[in-house]
Amino acid sequence: MNDFVFQNTTKVYFGKNQLAKVPDELGRFGKNVLMVYGGGSIKRTGLYDQLMNLMQNAGLTVYELSGVEPNPRHSTVNRGARICRENHVDVVLAVGGGSTIDCSKAIAVTTLADTDDVWDLVERKVAYSKALPIVTVVTLAATGSEMDAGAVISNMDKNIKSGLGGPMCRPSVTFEDPELTFSVPAFQTACGSFDIMSHVLDVAYFSQQEQMDMLERIQEEVMKTVVKYAPVAIKEPDNYEARANLMWASSWALNDFMYCGVSQMTACHAMEHELSAYYDITHGLGLAILTPRWLRYILDDTTAPKIAQYGRNVFGLPASGDVMEDAKKAIDALEDFCYNKLGLESHLSRLGIGEENFEKMAESAVRGKEIRGFKTLRKEDVMAIYQMCM
Amino acid sequence: MNDFVFQNTTKVYFGKNQLAKVPDELGRFGKNVLMVYGGGSIKRTGLYDQLMNLMQNAGLTVYELSGVEPNPRHSTVNRGARICRENHVDVVLAVGGGSTIDCSKAIAVTTLADTDDVWDLVERKVAYSKALPIVTVVTLAATGSEMDAGAVISNMDKNIKSGLGGPMCRPSVTFEDPELTFSVPAFQTACGSFDIMSHVLDVAYFSQQEQMDMLERIQEEVMKTVVKYAPVAIKEPDNYEARANLMWASSWALNDFMYCGVSQMTACHAMEHELSAYYDITHGLGLAILTPRWLRYILDDTTAPKIAQYGRNVFGLPASGDVMEDAKKAIDALEDFCYNKLGLESHLSRLGIGEENFEKMAESAVRGKEIRGFKTLRKEDVMAIYQMCM
Repeated sequence: MNDFVFQNTTKVYFGKNQLAKVPDELGRFGKNVLMVYGGGSIKRTGLYDQLMNLMQNAGLTVYELSGVEPNPRHSTVNRGARICRENHVDVVLAVGGGSTIDCSKAIAVTTLADTDDVWDLVERKVAYSKALPIVTVVTLAATGSEMDAGAVISNMDKNIKSGLGGPMCRPSVTFEDPELTFSVPAFQTACGSFDIMSHVLDVAYFSQQEQMDMLERIQEEVMKTVVKYAPVAIKEPDNYEARANLMWASSWALNDFMYCGVSQMTACHAMEHELSAYYDITHGLGLAILTPRWLRYILDDTTAPKIAQYGRNVFGLPASGDVMEDAKKAIDALEDFCYNKLGLESHLSRLGIGEENFEKMAESAVRGKEIRGFKTLRKEDVMAIYQMCM
Repeated sequence: MNDFVFQNTTKVYFGKNQLAKVPDELGRFGKNVLMVYGGGSIKRTGLYDQLMNLMQNAGLTVYELSGVEPNPRHSTVNRGARICRENHVDVVLAVGGGSTIDCSKAIAVTTLADTDDVWDLVERKVAYSKALPIVTVVTLAATGSEMDAGAVISNMDKNIKSGLGGPMCRPSVTFEDPELTFSVPAFQTACGSFDIMSHVLDVAYFSQQEQMDMLERIQEEVMKTVVKYAPVAIKEPDNYEARANLMWASSWALNDFMYCGVSQMTACHAMEHELSAYYDITHGLGLAILTPRWLRYILDDTTAPKIAQYGRNVFGLPASGDVMEDAKKAIDALEDFCYNKLGLESHLSRLGIGEENFEKMAESAVRGKEIRGFKTLRKEDVMAIYQMCM
């Protein structure tokens, strides 16, 4: 069992009647706010007007950055940082899902850094240790970025999706109102739900490292929450219980608690980041296509016991006595969950993706060497897994 | 499902090789440290010398308050606050279990308050909003005070055990080394383990309020961790896996995560505080004697389903189809756990406690009116429960 350090300072307001506190929390940091959001769904739902009224009535000055992409671009980050510098912005308010929040974190860091290009920070050419404070209003249960200290940014000129992070990137305050996710369409609900599942299993659960028993059991409960409530939220978009459970699961799947003592590279995330970087596909969908194939590819005597345990404890499968058989059935259950229960596409080829970039993508995914984790993957392994997804 | 606010800022160093970071973390707050500890077991185990060497080598000036009682006295708190004021102490270092940590929190608050008597704060005669920073080195898995914002103090002159708290009382940094609990005797291990169980069930699990499903499942996993590992730690005191699971369970049982959205009075804690205040018995032992009797007393059609669920999900009992029967078996299983598996005493009378104070204690436990929670208790209910413990 590895030693670890745990700290998560984010203050979370959770529930139906919390947004009125947004101006107070922003006002603790200053008067000038940059509000960051995506494609405008917050205008259709009325959230934009609600927040604007609250902030203006509180005497805050609000600047705006809209149009943040689903895989946020470094150029968008740079635009946001410029607005912050020119207007002496005191605090960044992210209103949206993981992409908007990640973009806001990167803006908050870049504003105070010695460069006007966030990519210098991603490539570690310029050091950074400070950020503007970040407040989030979450509209999608998925990445958990709202309690997490990392951000993922895409550079489409270079086909690279990469990250930055540190304690300064962790949101100071987060508002989670499950009702704000009632309007999330079935496809996005499915992708977000698999993202939650993936954080638990890719970052911690499937590992050769000895874990604390209690944390493994809690990881299973968070994954069971996804298995139970994602199909409910897809069928009944305004089911508060389902949306609330998914929302709180998403925050806890990535706020470091689940991972205490586990330190490994995340194979599915590394492989998926290449898919998003080259084809701009939704992160959760990429993960749902890759994860079952990854498990089938790495299935052997060393991995079968944990995969079989996953089947028993997350999908409620019986133990047959044959561990290899049970592991295969666990992967079947995961496929059934992804492609039937969540209704996600199962093949890259059906998304119009060809094999032409697999070698470059695999090279980049293994960072020129290998992905260490539940099972070490080299370039040819990653290519084979991409191939299994066609 | 109630709205809630969650924030827990404590930084935790967990594991075998973390104590070397103590001086750095203390040094962030200043040079003058008050080290608070209990009856001297830390001198026998070598922890005292280890910490003293680390701090002195780092150039810190260390003042000491020793002899903190198992139910810490307000007079001891006042003594500690005087040392802090006279020596311009910058940070309080608690080395011990919940009593030492609670005492340290109360010292940290009193030092900066407009009174030299902590009881003025407990009785809300003097307002308080600040505290010296608190760092803890935990030597007992029990109260979870190391990540929590409350403190319980006893005034033996008045036979009152009462609390103070607030964000300023939450430790800034906590060190949890499971090896430090290898030397905890079986009785204290048992009491501490039941304290963990009790925090989950008394504060949140047994409630009529609608809870988030994921949190209820996680509550059950934390209680199952206690059921699984407490007997192991009692039999094999230096079993790292058992000690580590209990230690991390103790922190998470009281760090607010388990209770998100539940707001109720804690019946067993209210009744137990009277036992400790009058008879100075160990908190976890008092809880273990009271809890099964409390459940039997309140067992009816409104409470049976949840008690039966507790039996199934925490003790692994089968569902018979008869909910009332299952609830009774769950209470049997809890008694078996407390009095056989943990080996704790089951009757107050065998601890030399008589009935003479039951009426006064019950009056005080219900705060002159009632305890609202899983089932509302009035004075006569509390007296009847005390009676069942004889």
